[in-house]
Amino acid sequence: MKGFAMRKIGSTGWVEKERPQCGPLDAICRPLALAPCTSDIHTVWAGAIGDRKDMILGHEAVGEVVEVGALVKDFKPGDRVIITAITPDWSTLEAQGGFPMHSGGMLSGWKFSNFKDGVFAEYFHVNDADGNLAHLPEGMDLGAATMLADMVPTGLHGAELADITFGDNVAVIGIGPVGLMAVAGAALRGAAQIYAVGSRKNCADLALEFGATRIVNYREGDIVEQILDLTRGQGVDKVIVAGGDNNTFTQALKILKPGGIIGNVNYLGEGESVPISRLDWGCGMGHKQIRGGLMPGGRLRAEKLARLVTAGRIHPEKLITHTFHGLENVEPALMLMKDKPRDLIKPLVILD
Amino acid sequence: MKGFAMRKIGSTGWVEKERPQCGPLDAICRPLALAPCTSDIHTVWAGAIGDRKDMILGHEAVGEVVEVGALVKDFKPGDRVIITAITPDWSTLEAQGGFPMHSGGMLSGWKFSNFKDGVFAEYFHVNDADGNLAHLPEGMDLGAATMLADMVPTGLHGAELADITFGDNVAVIGIGPVGLMAVAGAALRGAAQIYAVGSRKNCADLALEFGATRIVNYREGDIVEQILDLTRGQGVDKVIVAGGDNNTFTQALKILKPGGIIGNVNYLGEGESVPISRLDWGCGMGHKQIRGGLMPGGRLRAEKLARLVTAGRIHPEKLITHTFHGLENVEPALMLMKDKPRDLIKPLVILD
Amino acid sequence: MKGFAMRKIGSTGWVEKERPQCGPLDAICRPLALAPCTSDIHTVWAGAIGDRKDMILGHEAVGEVVEVGALVKDFKPGDRVIITAITPDWSTLEAQGGFPMHSGGMLSGWKFSNFKDGVFAEYFHVNDADGNLAHLPEGMDLGAATMLADMVPTGLHGAELADITFGDNVAVIGIGPVGLMAVAGAALRGAAQIYAVGSRKNCADLALEFGATRIVNYREGDIVEQILDLTRGQGVDKVIVAGGDNNTFTQALKILKPGGIIGNVNYLGEGESVPISRLDWGCGMGHKQIRGGLMPGGRLRAEKLARLVTAGRIHPEKLITHTFHGLENVEPALMLMKDKPRDLIKPLVILD
Amino acid sequence: MKGFAMRKIGSTGWVEKERPQCGPLDAICRPLALAPCTSDIHTVWAGAIGDRKDMILGHEAVGEVVEVGALVKDFKPGDRVIITAITPDWSTLEAQGGFPMHSGGMLSGWKFSNFKDGVFAEYFHVNDADGNLAHLPEGMDLGAATMLADMVPTGLHGAELADITFGDNVAVIGIGPVGLMAVAGAALRGAAQIYAVGSRKNCADLALEFGATRIVNYREGDIVEQILDLTRGQGVDKVIVAGGDNNTFTQALKILKPGGIIGNVNYLGEGESVPISRLDWGCGMGHKQIRGGLMPGGRLRAEKLARLVTAGRIHPEKLITHTFHGLENVEPALMLMKDKPRDLIKPLVILD
Repeated sequence: MKGFAMRKIGSTGWVEKERPQCGPLDAICRPLALAPCTSDIHTVWAGAIGDRKDMILGHEAVGEVVEVGALVKDFKPGDRVIITAITPDWSTLEAQGGFPMHSGGMLSGWKFSNFKDGVFAEYFHVNDADGNLAHLPEGMDLGAATMLADMVPTGLHGAELADITFGDNVAVIGIGPVGLMAVAGAALRGAAQIYAVGSRKNCADLALEFGATRIVNYREGDIVEQILDLTRGQGVDKVIVAGGDNNTFTQALKILKPGGIIGNVNYLGEGESVPISRLDWGCGMGHKQIRGGLMPGGRLRAEKLARLVTAGRIHPEKLITHTFHGLENVEPALMLMKDKPRDLIKPLVILD
Repeated sequence: MKGFAMRKIGSTGWVEKERPQCGPLDAICRPLALAPCTSDIHTVWAGAIGDRKDMILGHEAVGEVVEVGALVKDFKPGDRVIITAITPDWSTLEAQGGFPMHSGGMLSGWKFSNFKDGVFAEYFHVNDADGNLAHLPEGMDLGAATMLADMVPTGLHGAELADITFGDNVAVIGIGPVGLMAVAGAALRGAAQIYAVGSRKNCADLALEFGATRIVNYREGDIVEQILDLTRGQGVDKVIVAGGDNNTFTQALKILKPGGIIGNVNYLGEGESVPISRLDWGCGMGHKQIRGGLMPGGRLRAEKLARLVTAGRIHPEKLITHTFHGLENVEPALMLMKDKPRDLIKPLVILD
Repeated sequence: MKGFAMRKIGSTGWVEKERPQCGPLDAICRPLALAPCTSDIHTVWAGAIGDRKDMILGHEAVGEVVEVGALVKDFKPGDRVIITAITPDWSTLEAQGGFPMHSGGMLSGWKFSNFKDGVFAEYFHVNDADGNLAHLPEGMDLGAATMLADMVPTGLHGAELADITFGDNVAVIGIGPVGLMAVAGAALRGAAQIYAVGSRKNCADLALEFGATRIVNYREGDIVEQILDLTRGQGVDKVIVAGGDNNTFTQALKILKPGGIIGNVNYLGEGESVPISRLDWGCGMGHKQIRGGLMPGGRLRAEKLARLVTAGRIHPEKLITHTFHGLENVEPALMLMKDKPRDLIKPLVILD
Repeated sequence: MKGFAMRKIGSTGWVEKERPQCGPLDAICRPLALAPCTSDIHTVWAGAIGDRKDMILGHEAVGEVVEVGALVKDFKPGDRVIITAITPDWSTLEAQGGFPMHSGGMLSGWKFSNFKDGVFAEYFHVNDADGNLAHLPEGMDLGAATMLADMVPTGLHGAELADITFGDNVAVIGIGPVGLMAVAGAALRGAAQIYAVGSRKNCADLALEFGATRIVNYREGDIVEQILDLTRGQGVDKVIVAGGDNNTFTQALKILKPGGIIGNVNYLGEGESVPISRLDWGCGMGHKQIRGGLMPGGRLRAEKLARLVTAGRIHPEKLITHTFHGLENVEPALMLMKDKPRDLIKPLVILD
């Protein structure tokens, strides 16, 4: 079969591989829709997860089941399915302890285009089909469904990590596709004011549509000062970090009230350490919690987030600014993510 | 001063009393807007809290401060304020333990028209002004602000008690004004499907506008069967009880998945006990939590809920179906709550 | 193989069956030690879970692995293992949602001597060996290890359900073996005063040793009055229900402060419903939570509880008052549980 | 009255001041027992909270009420009382939000020897007597009671911040008096193995007595390596930081499993920032929460912790290695804390 792969750090290309084997608990799927992710870019061009040889890229897909293992109960060939980017091993100690994304080791619930071939191929393999697939609801938009693989669960996890409660004022730093879903998630957890930090117009417009009450443009001044001004010096109750870099955490601490929480969903790909400004952190005494975590994946998560789409609570299809057709177009779609034209939020590739 | 009072069980009338005294921490307010509550009806005609003699009724008000005690720091005469129906004593053990509504004893955070004169008067007294008043945001609709006294905090507390999380399917039993705010609260905590149980058309319409995805009319069949049908036998993740009677809890258990939660915000005024159906409760082993509690009150709560109005997340002014003018009209407004015409959701009295 | 079975309601006996088959994820074990449980008695003589034909009894065992399926990674024949009474299916929606004991349906994580043959046999079957076995720590007492199957996880779950925090005053109603572990669990969660309700001397003595500060004997007067007296009318912060009957919940509510929690781990085998006294429950407004749930099982749970034994935090071997040797003695051991002599807490059967 | 004061940074001495005024909600107490704290040392000699002029030192005391304000209900002159080091303003927004220690601003619940004169004087002032005093239980050891001011609530808060659950393996870094109470707190929250990091023999001995299962001596090698060895590379579930410096957090992250929590109760007095090692933090994705916070104070907290002493769950009097008599001896007691002889854990001054 054909797949679009990371050949090595800094290089991509099409490869020919054997169709993956299906274990007794597993499924083999063919993609119905695919989306490239910024982390594919980091994987290839920044070497964020180390070197990989001819590893097929991609972890965002909607698919059709073509084969299932003998022990699979709830899925059969022909079923159309949502697949989350994180596909845990549910029997592991970590999953039993409530952290399936770290099943088998820190971040090891993330398998596609990390430990094994990803979804940018004619076929891809899903471990534990009953635990990691979800039936695609009748009539669900393929773009929305593809966003359920990573953008929605990651963005909404920011709101969960930050533990937003009724009436919290919230800052969301970063309004790329994940940050936009974090804005939607903050609104959907009961935030009052949402200060969305970003500069690109199409993202800002969508942030406002998704529930932001104010755009804070870092090109127009220090975001700490802007947010403190907007809150009359009070700061915010919670911060979701969905962009920026290691220094963003100190900005976040400066605008955060004591008792507040930072929820990070931004993969920090560079630097030795994340500096936590001592005084802004209350000399370690300020009850400003710092949390960050990989999205939860798996079937229940996918089903529950799919319900949010069906019920009209979130509209992830609005993230999609560019649509391609045919597997061969994952390459230009990925390059679009690399080049980041100003009108891009998220590309989608439909396989007809 | 003049006040509209419960004379004794089953009887109301206007009384003349001394203007209340202002302690060093307290405030005296005059009402700007008032609303009668179903619990005023229960208090007078069902004797729900026992007999009371010439006790001024009412606990839903927006007011203007006319006097403050010497130790009050953040409020002064002329300030326009939101007052929650529950006005805790914040130094008590119960408040320190996270249950301010029970400060000084179970339910004892509820003072207005329970332990002391209520707000249906020319003046009323607020204990601990700094802890229990909130500044009325500039430009906020008086109707919305009055709903922040009880309807909003009680309804939203249902969603908090039920601990709704992203993608939960939820049933809200009862869609009077509290139930309607519970629907809004469920949507605002991230519910997916919301099954709102009720029969009156104007309430049903508003429930749909506030986020319900389906109305379940108990006049059209057993609600348990209807909800199990709608969920293909699965039931719901959470139930908010905002109406019904003691037997409602067994209905709630029947539609609730194991691991689910019932959050009750309905005052149970009658009967010896609430029967919990043993089998539906999993023989005590089903992890179906049963919770119920009086709304939290106080300044922070009022401020945070007011922010939700300001940010456009909730629209409690839509509850108001009948508007009166002048203190004297609290009497017909209250009678309206007693008679419950079918076009009524909530009356408001504006004091010009 | 030979097994001791429920022949039908009210009747037990030895049966001869095929050794169970081992699926690819499973293990077959032979018992090293066994213990009968009160729920075996309820199953047979009260018909608590309905009729069963020739179903092998028992769910408390320590074993040795004799066979594993092809997909099992962490266990091999000859391994000595702890097995919890509840053996969930970890990929299910319920387990993913944090309720593995309800995997596949309410209470369906409980398989041994419920849906399938139990452990009172020459061999028994364990589903998902990697997820549901735990290595027996070197040198651990077999009696203590057998108590990790049910008595320890169930008793400690009472303390978890009641969410005991530092300095809580706690009542534990019932001091059979589960209640005794609930006492130990309450002490180990930071309870201050622990009022243990029971009457048998050996249980009372062990309760005091396990951390109870006071025995409340229901034969010496109403327990509600006694506990209110002991707490100068204040009542307790939390209640663990580990015995009694359906009316125990009303007693629990009467001694519980507002904001308190009842954590039930007593299987309620009889009666139509559990009455919740309306006034004691604050008319549904008192924030007195009512929780109850089957113990969590599985490998992580077993490993963590085993660590408590190894670290000397709990001493479950002290529950064992009677020790037998040889599989054939599960019958008299079970009868002992049925007859409940006053010197019995828990019998153990060692297989040499 | 006479008081022992910080004259300026680096200098202490006795001062003569007016006895403090008693507001209507307040109490004036005379000390019955006092203890100096390491933070008094940091305040004076490291200038940790900035310069202070003639500010009376000390925040650990047991006292006798000599005067109460007109609005105080539950205390009267002659009452013997516990006073926590943190005395919140309970009506503030922060206290209402669950963070009383930050009432009025980050860390502002800490008033003694920070914003106002401390307790090392003939008399001292307590704000909100009903909210911040607790009756000294009959017969309680004055040393234990004095430790309830700061050592116990701070140490136990470490276990709360780290959210220790049954069977967690825990590292406690630092075994000075706070760290020792953190060890006790970890054991009392259900920890299994407790690795206590320290080097002084008397502290190590007491750590073992308080529940540590192993002393890890940093003088005998890198603590990260030692703890990873002891846990066969697995690391621990939770870490309490009660000593060390800014770099301790990276050590903590290295030994912490994904999904784990660091609970810091060490005041970080120096340095620009706390470096969080990016890779050990899972690139921001590892669900390793970093928390830190000032102890909660106030009456309920004091009462609940006092109950733990009364019930024999904790033995804080064992911290006291040196006892002095007479107010004049707060000076040598403080100097002892400054000099830290190897046999010192905590000094106490009894006022006869």
